[in-house]
Amino acid sequence: MIIVMKSDASKEEISKILKEVKKLGFNLNLSKGKEKTIVGLIGNGRAVSPGHFRPFSGVEDVLRISKPFKLASREFKPEKSVIQVNGVSVGGEKIPIMAGPCAVENREQILETALKVKKAGATILRGGAFKPRSSPYSFQGLKEKGLEMLAEAKEKTGLSIVTEVMAPEHVPLVGEVADILQIGTRNMQNYALLEAVGKYKKPVLLKRGMMATLEEFLMAAEYILANGNSKIILCERGIRTFETYTRNTLDLSAVPLLNQLSHLPVCVDPSHATGSRSLITPLSKAAIAAGVDALIVEVHPHPEKALSDGAQSLNLEDFSKFMEELRPVAEAVKRRI
Amino acid sequence: MIIVMKSDASKEEISKILKEVKKLGFNLNLSKGKEKTIVGLIGNGRAVSPGHFRPFSGVEDVLRISKPFKLASREFKPEKSVIQVNGVSVGGEKIPIMAGPCAVENREQILETALKVKKAGATILRGGAFKPRSSPYSFQGLKEKGLEMLAEAKEKTGLSIVTEVMAPEHVPLVGEVADILQIGTRNMQNYALLEAVGKYKKPVLLKRGMMATLEEFLMAAEYILANGNSKIILCERGIRTFETYTRNTLDLSAVPLLNQLSHLPVCVDPSHATGSRSLITPLSKAAIAAGVDALIVEVHPHPEKALSDGAQSLNLEDFSKFMEELRPVAEAVKRRI
Amino acid sequence: MIIVMKSDASKEEISKILKEVKKLGFNLNLSKGKEKTIVGLIGNGRAVSPGHFRPFSGVEDVLRISKPFKLASREFKPEKSVIQVNGVSVGGEKIPIMAGPCAVENREQILETALKVKKAGATILRGGAFKPRSSPYSFQGLKEKGLEMLAEAKEKTGLSIVTEVMAPEHVPLVGEVADILQIGTRNMQNYALLEAVGKYKKPVLLKRGMMATLEEFLMAAEYILANGNSKIILCERGIRTFETYTRNTLDLSAVPLLNQLSHLPVCVDPSHATGSRSLITPLSKAAIAAGVDALIVEVHPHPEKALSDGAQSLNLEDFSKFMEELRPVAEAVKRRI
Amino acid sequence: MIIVMKSDASKEEISKILKEVKKLGFNLNLSKGKEKTIVGLIGNGRAVSPGHFRPFSGVEDVLRISKPFKLASREFKPEKSVIQVNGVSVGGEKIPIMAGPCAVENREQILETALKVKKAGATILRGGAFKPRSSPYSFQGLKEKGLEMLAEAKEKTGLSIVTEVMAPEHVPLVGEVADILQIGTRNMQNYALLEAVGKYKKPVLLKRGMMATLEEFLMAAEYILANGNSKIILCERGIRTFETYTRNTLDLSAVPLLNQLSHLPVCVDPSHATGSRSLITPLSKAAIAAGVDALIVEVHPHPEKALSDGAQSLNLEDFSKFMEELRPVAEAVKRRI
Repeated sequence: MIIVMKSDASKEEISKILKEVKKLGFNLNLSKGKEKTIVGLIGNGRAVSPGHFRPFSGVEDVLRISKPFKLASREFKPEKSVIQVNGVSVGGEKIPIMAGPCAVENREQILETALKVKKAGATILRGGAFKPRSSPYSFQGLKEKGLEMLAEAKEKTGLSIVTEVMAPEHVPLVGEVADILQIGTRNMQNYALLEAVGKYKKPVLLKRGMMATLEEFLMAAEYILANGNSKIILCERGIRTFETYTRNTLDLSAVPLLNQLSHLPVCVDPSHATGSRSLITPLSKAAIAAGVDALIVEVHPHPEKALSDGAQSLNLEDFSKFMEELRPVAEAVKRRI
Repeated sequence: MIIVMKSDASKEEISKILKEVKKLGFNLNLSKGKEKTIVGLIGNGRAVSPGHFRPFSGVEDVLRISKPFKLASREFKPEKSVIQVNGVSVGGEKIPIMAGPCAVENREQILETALKVKKAGATILRGGAFKPRSSPYSFQGLKEKGLEMLAEAKEKTGLSIVTEVMAPEHVPLVGEVADILQIGTRNMQNYALLEAVGKYKKPVLLKRGMMATLEEFLMAAEYILANGNSKIILCERGIRTFETYTRNTLDLSAVPLLNQLSHLPVCVDPSHATGSRSLITPLSKAAIAAGVDALIVEVHPHPEKALSDGAQSLNLEDFSKFMEELRPVAEAVKRRI
Repeated sequence: MIIVMKSDASKEEISKILKEVKKLGFNLNLSKGKEKTIVGLIGNGRAVSPGHFRPFSGVEDVLRISKPFKLASREFKPEKSVIQVNGVSVGGEKIPIMAGPCAVENREQILETALKVKKAGATILRGGAFKPRSSPYSFQGLKEKGLEMLAEAKEKTGLSIVTEVMAPEHVPLVGEVADILQIGTRNMQNYALLEAVGKYKKPVLLKRGMMATLEEFLMAAEYILANGNSKIILCERGIRTFETYTRNTLDLSAVPLLNQLSHLPVCVDPSHATGSRSLITPLSKAAIAAGVDALIVEVHPHPEKALSDGAQSLNLEDFSKFMEELRPVAEAVKRRI
Repeated sequence: MIIVMKSDASKEEISKILKEVKKLGFNLNLSKGKEKTIVGLIGNGRAVSPGHFRPFSGVEDVLRISKPFKLASREFKPEKSVIQVNGVSVGGEKIPIMAGPCAVENREQILETALKVKKAGATILRGGAFKPRSSPYSFQGLKEKGLEMLAEAKEKTGLSIVTEVMAPEHVPLVGEVADILQIGTRNMQNYALLEAVGKYKKPVLLKRGMMATLEEFLMAAEYILANGNSKIILCERGIRTFETYTRNTLDLSAVPLLNQLSHLPVCVDPSHATGSRSLITPLSKAAIAAGVDALIVEVHPHPEKALSDGAQSLNLEDFSKFMEELRPVAEAVKRRI
């Protein structure tokens, strides 16, 4: 960390800072320029954030020079993590496709979808049983009954299951059926929930908050890691910007950047990012070309009858074509679908 | 709701839509222009969101013409709500000031602060016992012990207490001490938590998500209202933008806008919005001039020793001056501090 | 256009609106619901924007149901435009690569770069002679001398030239050397400049404003089209968001969306979007997979000696590898480099 | 400036940086920590931006520790600048109000407005003769004829005139009538225009780009200052965010922040910021409470007949009430209207 003192900082103010730095167990490097005095912290003192020094009088700015996340970083673990999910690897050469409806609506819908997406090549079934909705008056999911239907689909098809968990007390319930517990975008900084899935130790699909920086995203992963669970798949699902043609703006730079910053595998959700069916295929190809490790897409047997998010769902026929279109792109970057 | 059909929509596509509209219990108004066909939904059909119609083929856009929030709206309750908090009114002529440290750190700190902010004119004590922190390695609050200290400060000073609750299962625990339960910005769409405070029925300070539109903010209030609790204070605390000089961008237009859209009282938090002590006073004056009903500010006896957020805290002496500076502005808009 | 009246709009207010609609030459469709009255405008009345009706009393909202751009739209010209640039086609099967330094710095630098990028497969040379810089104290480009060096590079290599023009009065000067006139991101809504290049009729590379919506972007193209020039290449170069790891956020959804909305060819600039050399290759592959028609990348013989933007430049060796890596991805989506 | 080397930077990479630092004329401070080596630049070497060092191999980050603007800074000129505009002071105790229509539409409209706003207490008349419009098909202003009408209004009322200039070649023409030349939000980084008004030396109302950080805003002012003109009024007019209830988000923290960072007077435009008439009065009061030096508001004799932006205009009667409501707030912060 580097502390920049104001150009008119007094000797007293500077010496107060120096004392504090030493008290925290750091060595220091002092640089007095004509205009500014700079204090550099060296060594392994007590964990301290830039905010610790900002309130001292005479301080102009405090700059962090190392990243706040540790267990999630490439420095900590240089090789890519491969997460094992009930026989499916996430983070390896093969790119698993997670497909299914936004919400589990009834037995037929989820069974039909599961059979068809499996046939087309998907290896993981997605489907919401507990649904976070911005209106209290909207369909909130089938809850326990939805989980039972997912369990049946899993049994009948052998597909792994990814489904969302919304509250700490639901983790064991959802975890009984789910092979991957999904943390939704609105809960990325729900720390009680992050701790709960950290302790539960099943694989987690952590969605980036729609207004979270990559640093905050990796700090959310750090919460799960610090609680003992390293089976995390990071999922970019669009961030909030001023653009209104798409629901959110898919941040594909996040894919190579997360690959540089972290060892955790990276997934992309083009359905929620764009809110628009016609953009799913081109952006899925782009995600693969950018180096993604997994994709999660919405598929519904009858999008126009979906109880939620039908506008961003592929139908079953489209999904087969979609899978076909991805294959040559994956091969071009030495991956497989 | 209005459905705009694509200019090349077929007769079949249009008639499919018309059927669906009738099935949902609406009357319809059909307008065939040269370029586009427009379908208007009239009457009180089944609750349905624009997303319901978007997946139908031939549909170009679906426009909502009424607001999605009901119980929170001025149409539902034309007169301003005044929330009673243990003898303090929020929403009336007098503007209560909530003051105190970001986190409760020890007995002395909170008692000293409580006595001094009371003397300067504050009527509600703020202080975090459970602290959401972006790093798992940062100080997470004193938890139960912090609540005990708040209880003692309340007993000794008669100040009401506002403190954050982070998980549904903590609501009764925190609610025993708190007169106002605070929902933090990262939890604005933590629906399990919103339901829990909705059922608990104590006053709630609902902070706007740093990434939430005003519509989403009011929909979060609607969750609490729909669960039976109408004692909600809306709190603008800065939104995330591209500007980096301030931590967030305080959206003061939210104050008059929320006053127009909703009957719920509106609070502003200039400390978290800006992250900078020197901006608290001018922006608090501005908030009062814009019509705010309450303010919440960070005050710490020794900001440079604060365990969190010291850079945005006033010290006790500054706080007295701050209160003095607010009074004439409040009078200028016919309010009192 | 659709006008939504307030639920308490008076008969007088409604009839005033109806009169105005007729005065403007539209037929109207009136729909009186229980809560709201809706007025739809039908036919080809006088050009009028939603802002025209908003100030009338009793109006709650005015919704546009058709796009404001015409000449730039796919409806106006259903087939893709192919722009001919001095023997290079932009918008066809082959994806031309524009490469070169941010700024022309000296004769050697630009000639060496031109020869090497040509050898690696680039067909268009980029290089700034007039440089918009956020500081008046930064290097502003070699201006006329820079243009002369570009002309020499063109003569020696046969490469086409793309270079920025910053003021209307420079259009003929820059246009003498440039095969493509570049409008920079800060000038996307410099209407005097858009008109000037519209009248000049040489191909234009129009960069999206870093905070422009796609609609505003296409309206800027519409200015050029309305002035008689249809040779426009749209260039996505990153938009401004809250994320700080990258300079801007590359909006790759813009590629398929612009392909749907407009007939104009689409280019991507991964160098300016990210500000980071290590992201150029993965995001260029992604752009190609998403359907881009051209790429523009920064290449400098010695990035560490560049007078501007060296951090986002590939060196000459990297550029050859870059070209090799793009080829299989282009083939996977049935294009060529 | 501080250069942070990667933890695995080689001796060679570090010594290459040290050489470069010396070549540029700086002394240096070298700090070798366990993890990172930090290079600090000391003294007055050649002007150099962080981008200069980023492309060197082994560099992780480059941090600026001083502000890039000089002439615009409070350090350069500690006391507030007061701009004299034809007898009106901007930056003093009295807060001048600039009022008038978005566009000059005809002689009657501008004369009636001028007389009435003067009577209510405005001292500067605003009105656009050259209008930047996002559509080439919208009304672009009366141009020269509009300027003539403004000149007549000035003669008849003695009000000063503020009006926009859109292109460098129009500066003398507009400057003949205008007492203050307005640079619009879309032209904040039109450097050719900034240079032109810098050399022309009449007072300038510089509007913040809707996408510009405060640093970029002050750098735009620096362009005008560096060209010899120090008569600049900074105008906050709303920034672009994800919120959609208002046209833009008025950033009122900019008022106290600009007051801290710069000596230039600060103006606020609540009409363009919000796009909504009902928000003008509360936000104008807020701006005054926050310490603004001037206000610019849209006033139209018949907002519902305005050719542009009527929805955000006060009518003449509203404007008188508006002025009355501002007075007590100004007095509360020891200013006058």
